[in-house]
Amino acid sequence: MLLNCVAYENGVKLADLAVEDISDYLERPDCFVWVALRDTTDTELDKMQEEFGLHDLAVEDARHGHQRPKIEEYGDTLFVAMHLVEVGHPDLEVGEVNIFAGRNFILSVRNRSSRSLLGVRARCEREPDLLRLGSGFVLYALMDAVVDLYFPVIDDLESQLESIEEHLFDKGAALTNIAQLYELKRKSVVLKHAVMPLMEATGKLHGGRVPMVCVTTQDYFRDVYDHLTRINAAIDAMRDTITTAILVSQSTVSIEQNVINKRLAAWAAIFAIATVFTGIWGMNFRLMPELQWDYGYPVALMIIIAVCGYLYLHFKRSDWL
Amino acid sequence: MLLNCVAYENGVKLADLAVEDISDYLERPDCFVWVALRDTTDTELDKMQEEFGLHDLAVEDARHGHQRPKIEEYGDTLFVAMHLVEVGHPDLEVGEVNIFAGRNFILSVRNRSSRSLLGVRARCEREPDLLRLGSGFVLYALMDAVVDLYFPVIDDLESQLESIEEHLFDKGAALTNIAQLYELKRKSVVLKHAVMPLMEATGKLHGGRVPMVCVTTQDYFRDVYDHLTRINAAIDAMRDTITTAILVSQSTVSIEQNVINKRLAAWAAIFAIATVFTGIWGMNFRLMPELQWDYGYPVALMIIIAVCGYLYLHFKRSDWL
Amino acid sequence: MLLNCVAYENGVKLADLAVEDISDYLERPDCFVWVALRDTTDTELDKMQEEFGLHDLAVEDARHGHQRPKIEEYGDTLFVAMHLVEVGHPDLEVGEVNIFAGRNFILSVRNRSSRSLLGVRARCEREPDLLRLGSGFVLYALMDAVVDLYFPVIDDLESQLESIEEHLFDKGAALTNIAQLYELKRKSVVLKHAVMPLMEATGKLHGGRVPMVCVTTQDYFRDVYDHLTRINAAIDAMRDTITTAILVSQSTVSIEQNVINKRLAAWAAIFAIATVFTGIWGMNFRLMPELQWDYGYPVALMIIIAVCGYLYLHFKRSDWL
Amino acid sequence: MLLNCVAYENGVKLADLAVEDISDYLERPDCFVWVALRDTTDTELDKMQEEFGLHDLAVEDARHGHQRPKIEEYGDTLFVAMHLVEVGHPDLEVGEVNIFAGRNFILSVRNRSSRSLLGVRARCEREPDLLRLGSGFVLYALMDAVVDLYFPVIDDLESQLESIEEHLFDKGAALTNIAQLYELKRKSVVLKHAVMPLMEATGKLHGGRVPMVCVTTQDYFRDVYDHLTRINAAIDAMRDTITTAILVSQSTVSIEQNVINKRLAAWAAIFAIATVFTGIWGMNFRLMPELQWDYGYPVALMIIIAVCGYLYLHFKRSDWL
Amino acid sequence: MLLNCVAYENGVKLADLAVEDISDYLERPDCFVWVALRDTTDTELDKMQEEFGLHDLAVEDARHGHQRPKIEEYGDTLFVAMHLVEVGHPDLEVGEVNIFAGRNFILSVRNRSSRSLLGVRARCEREPDLLRLGSGFVLYALMDAVVDLYFPVIDDLESQLESIEEHLFDKGAALTNIAQLYELKRKSVVLKHAVMPLMEATGKLHGGRVPMVCVTTQDYFRDVYDHLTRINAAIDAMRDTITTAILVSQSTVSIEQNVINKRLAAWAAIFAIATVFTGIWGMNFRLMPELQWDYGYPVALMIIIAVCGYLYLHFKRSDWL
Repeated sequence: MLLNCVAYENGVKLADLAVEDISDYLERPDCFVWVALRDTTDTELDKMQEEFGLHDLAVEDARHGHQRPKIEEYGDTLFVAMHLVEVGHPDLEVGEVNIFAGRNFILSVRNRSSRSLLGVRARCEREPDLLRLGSGFVLYALMDAVVDLYFPVIDDLESQLESIEEHLFDKGAALTNIAQLYELKRKSVVLKHAVMPLMEATGKLHGGRVPMVCVTTQDYFRDVYDHLTRINAAIDAMRDTITTAILVSQSTVSIEQNVINKRLAAWAAIFAIATVFTGIWGMNFRLMPELQWDYGYPVALMIIIAVCGYLYLHFKRSDWL
Repeated sequence: MLLNCVAYENGVKLADLAVEDISDYLERPDCFVWVALRDTTDTELDKMQEEFGLHDLAVEDARHGHQRPKIEEYGDTLFVAMHLVEVGHPDLEVGEVNIFAGRNFILSVRNRSSRSLLGVRARCEREPDLLRLGSGFVLYALMDAVVDLYFPVIDDLESQLESIEEHLFDKGAALTNIAQLYELKRKSVVLKHAVMPLMEATGKLHGGRVPMVCVTTQDYFRDVYDHLTRINAAIDAMRDTITTAILVSQSTVSIEQNVINKRLAAWAAIFAIATVFTGIWGMNFRLMPELQWDYGYPVALMIIIAVCGYLYLHFKRSDWL
Repeated sequence: MLLNCVAYENGVKLADLAVEDISDYLERPDCFVWVALRDTTDTELDKMQEEFGLHDLAVEDARHGHQRPKIEEYGDTLFVAMHLVEVGHPDLEVGEVNIFAGRNFILSVRNRSSRSLLGVRARCEREPDLLRLGSGFVLYALMDAVVDLYFPVIDDLESQLESIEEHLFDKGAALTNIAQLYELKRKSVVLKHAVMPLMEATGKLHGGRVPMVCVTTQDYFRDVYDHLTRINAAIDAMRDTITTAILVSQSTVSIEQNVINKRLAAWAAIFAIATVFTGIWGMNFRLMPELQWDYGYPVALMIIIAVCGYLYLHFKRSDWL
Repeated sequence: MLLNCVAYENGVKLADLAVEDISDYLERPDCFVWVALRDTTDTELDKMQEEFGLHDLAVEDARHGHQRPKIEEYGDTLFVAMHLVEVGHPDLEVGEVNIFAGRNFILSVRNRSSRSLLGVRARCEREPDLLRLGSGFVLYALMDAVVDLYFPVIDDLESQLESIEEHLFDKGAALTNIAQLYELKRKSVVLKHAVMPLMEATGKLHGGRVPMVCVTTQDYFRDVYDHLTRINAAIDAMRDTITTAILVSQSTVSIEQNVINKRLAAWAAIFAIATVFTGIWGMNFRLMPELQWDYGYPVALMIIIAVCGYLYLHFKRSDWL
Repeated sequence: MLLNCVAYENGVKLADLAVEDISDYLERPDCFVWVALRDTTDTELDKMQEEFGLHDLAVEDARHGHQRPKIEEYGDTLFVAMHLVEVGHPDLEVGEVNIFAGRNFILSVRNRSSRSLLGVRARCEREPDLLRLGSGFVLYALMDAVVDLYFPVIDDLESQLESIEEHLFDKGAALTNIAQLYELKRKSVVLKHAVMPLMEATGKLHGGRVPMVCVTTQDYFRDVYDHLTRINAAIDAMRDTITTAILVSQSTVSIEQNVINKRLAAWAAIFAIATVFTGIWGMNFRLMPELQWDYGYPVALMIIIAVCGYLYLHFKRSDWL
């Protein structure tokens, strides 16, 4: 579905274009065309390929989707594939943004995501000084917008982790904790797969040899790279913490088991001693003088209670009960 | 076994050749020969070595098979060894495809696999524009076909993993889960060994210094490389998840044990208290007034039942039963 | 909040400046300006950007804070972001120092930290020979001061680790140990995130191509790099040890459980045998001669005590009790 | 002990030499000398050093043995240290082969291994075309022979691993499995230490700058490198699998424990309920009507058996017994 | 404390110098000065800095000590910091050797270690041919001496590990083993920190661009590097083995627990069945014919003994007892 198709000159909007007119405008110097598509059909993409002269393989990638984030050069044209990641329930929602960036055009294709990037165009049009930098700046603005969406996701994951950590040593919470940590780890994998390959690819857009489109806006791409590095480091730290937290949860289970076993042992001992006493006085020997005493029974009860009570206190003191 | 032996000129099929005529055609400019073998005998390979002038070491590798995936240059000729991996039961089935690619010839040898690559030739012949690019494009088409076969394998492994994950926290499922996870990890190792070395080798077919055969088709090899990177990342993520899942399974075992131990302890306590009571009233003291009461027995039973019932509820409430 | 704004010439203080006069002094050769801010407002930063001609993106970073430590070149100007880490209770306290270093100026901005860096200025002014080296030396002095603050932090963490290690094999201490180790690991992550990115960035300030500001003071930056390397290695060692210590703690839990289970088993056996004996002599067979003996009862008691005593000694000897 | 000392010209054996004549032959162009020693004495080595003009440090290394595998250049001479690894019982047997390779000589020294490398000389003499390539080819042939010996070792370790895997989930096999896995891991370390450093060193004998001795035989050394890479990857995979297998073995222990605990709990419950019943009817209340019934006793027994039987079936059904 | 201060010319000792004369001798061509200090005071170091013209930062490092091993160039002068590690009880003893190496001087400072390096000077003076190579060779000789001291340390750690391994599967040895393994791991960290940074730094003293001092003695420094690589690999292998051994120890604990639990269960069953039998015959039913039989009692005892004996044998056979 076509969202916009606009020509710009000197950082100022020139005209909304029909798709057929694109190639005309591309021939005008100092003019560049910015087209935004969404959930494209094959015919739309074919049309765009024809107008902009895009490479088969890049169009193929945009068509199939499910690409790993990457930045590829086809002659003068850059093909950028990015993941749009958003907090969803229960899983993260992952869409895609594919961008073709040539000397005098930008074609962005958004797939399987409801998150609009319209704000980027509005922001660019408000800053003609920067928009004058051409397609390189628009590419930056789009990438920056996509990357900025990763921050709330990592924040969400981190706050989930923190809320698990608060209950990490709670009694009986191990199973829930471990299940949640496992879920969190899976989400972090999804985010990691959006961030790390993009980070590596973006690292090649500043310093050293840089694709022509990005030459004048290197500092901006370094900024994007820097953001991605930050997010990537946060993910790594989180994953490390999750692993440790699972390990710690396992430990709490074992420790809890020790506590249970101790209590089991203590109560078993108390009841067993009482059973032995009643057993003794239940024996049928002819001559058991205490059985004949008037106060034999209450004394026996008191002895049993005293011994059990002593044991109880003993275990209490040594923290087995 | 010889499958095909065809000469092409300008992207169009020229003739089916006899093996003896190959060297003649190799001398014609603008002409290239594409030979496909399967489960070769030594004599076939010797013949081919003679016709194409292949290097001893490369032929040796093709003969012995069981190579690590690799791409080696012998002068102008490339030797490519790849694994053909397919979903099998119970294990993955691994065959081999060895390709010799020279300036004007392609010799592919498929071993120990029933998966035909005939479709590649058909597809190439339908696109004379691309086939005109020569042996470099055919090499790409063959590699692409082999790599495309990895996708269903990783998909299969991933869906197996997902089905295990659904039962990850099921009671008593730990042993089955762990056995399946172990099996899955082994399969991922097999796939990893097919993918990673090939990925590393393919990385050298685009950018920087590139073997002559591949110069005009660099973008295509980058595409193959990109696919391999994607599969490799998916394998790594899966392996990481498997390890975590085994860890988590271990935890569920310990947690289940806690549950069992608690129930054991609770029932032991209930029975033990009942035993103590019956023991007391089974003692043989002369003077135990309650024994003489008319309602002594039913009252005693009710006391026992009451105490046990209270304990039962108590344990129920504290989730030990 | 403006802390200082001073112009220096030939390593000697020239004058305290008003913010408006900065640009005048920047035009004088051999003169450089050193401004220190703290918890800046937006207007202050805007003013500074104007006076020093700073890059939008760098100012943006300084404004938002929460940067990953980094060193970025914007033309001739370096932007350095560092974390100020201090021992706090219960968590580490993390502030930020951002420095803009140009050919003839230094602008430092300290945020969210009460730790003053005034001492750096005093020290520099006491050593005119070094201060004469210009903004490169001041940058070094500031970085050195920030890095020196990491040493007490790592020392504190290490001594905490040592005190945990002393109790590592204490009975019943596992839960406390593990909780403390987990806390320690989290702190080490915070410190690691301050140190490692800064180390990597500082590594580019000596040897090879070096930013102009740092050329004459390379040896000094190598010294800072060396300190960071040392701290980083210490953190890595500590993290490794923590992981092992958690593993070891888990083991102590299991071992303790074995001890408990053995005692449980031993006592259960002793009481059970006594119960069996009393059960036997409590049976109601008509003809049980020992029941009629005069000394039957005391002999029976002695037998029971003897058997239990023997078992007790047996278990004691085999270390089950 | 001197094994052989032969001069070759144009790939053909010229003469068996006395040690004293070596230096004479070294002066003849197109001629090269191949000396093989075994478990050398100091005087032999000194003599060789004199004849071939070897570097002190290299001779020192050959004398002391226990070197890490490595390839070092001393001027025009290469010094190659390799481990000879063979399957032994119970441990792997590790010997050493040190080779000095100059422009026109090869000196090989085998220490602490009974495995003869004579076959290499025979094979080389059968192929004068290749032997004509000179000392570089002989060096390759020797390295190839040593590396080929690693394959049966890794095969042996892998088949041991497989036989352990077959019993991985056997009941009660955990201790044996873990002990064997531990042993296997130790052996893999020994093999790894033979293979990895050699692989890294061999990687420098082809492509890029190559020692003069190896220039004409680069393709052959790449072949050796390729073999080493394959073995190295196999070792890494095995080590990874071993670690997972130990983890899995640990899990089986815990799971088995759950099974035992369940059975313990089930039987305890059955006996405990029987004990309670007998305890009740063993009480001494004056008025317990069922005790007076004619069929009281058999009915009581039947009740006890019925209840225990019900419990037994119940536990059987829920898989606790 | 000054240990020696000697001038050499052409590899031969010229004279013992007073500290004040050093600078005079430094001006003579072909002459070099070798000074050895121990546990220096500040004034000594200041004096040396003056005589040799050392860099502030290097002197600062030597003064403060506790450096990470490193090699730094200050102009023509190298500053080398190394750790002297020796086997101690219970911990490793770590001292420091700092060396300043200039074109025509060597200044070595040993701190916090009683291990004398005098032997190095003696050995050098015995080999004037090598000593003629100048300060580069002396630097090598000192580094070699320090590195040679690491071998007995790693040997000691390895033999400790082996002695633990012998008891790895001993019953009840887990706690001791784990405590010792933990201790061993800590020591390996100390050694690692001495070896790895030094190895990395030494790797830059041969091949590629090499500091002027070391140019003529590159082969020697490669030898030192080689030793360090060997030690480093041994440490890594040991650490890996330690981790596995801890894991294995944990497993033995769990397995032992299974054994204990089985015995507990078996004995509990035997006693419980006996208790049930005595309970039955202790019931007070009026009509229990067997109670009236003459041989009722001995038959009952025999039944109990028979049943318990059968169970005992049963458990014995199935290895529970």
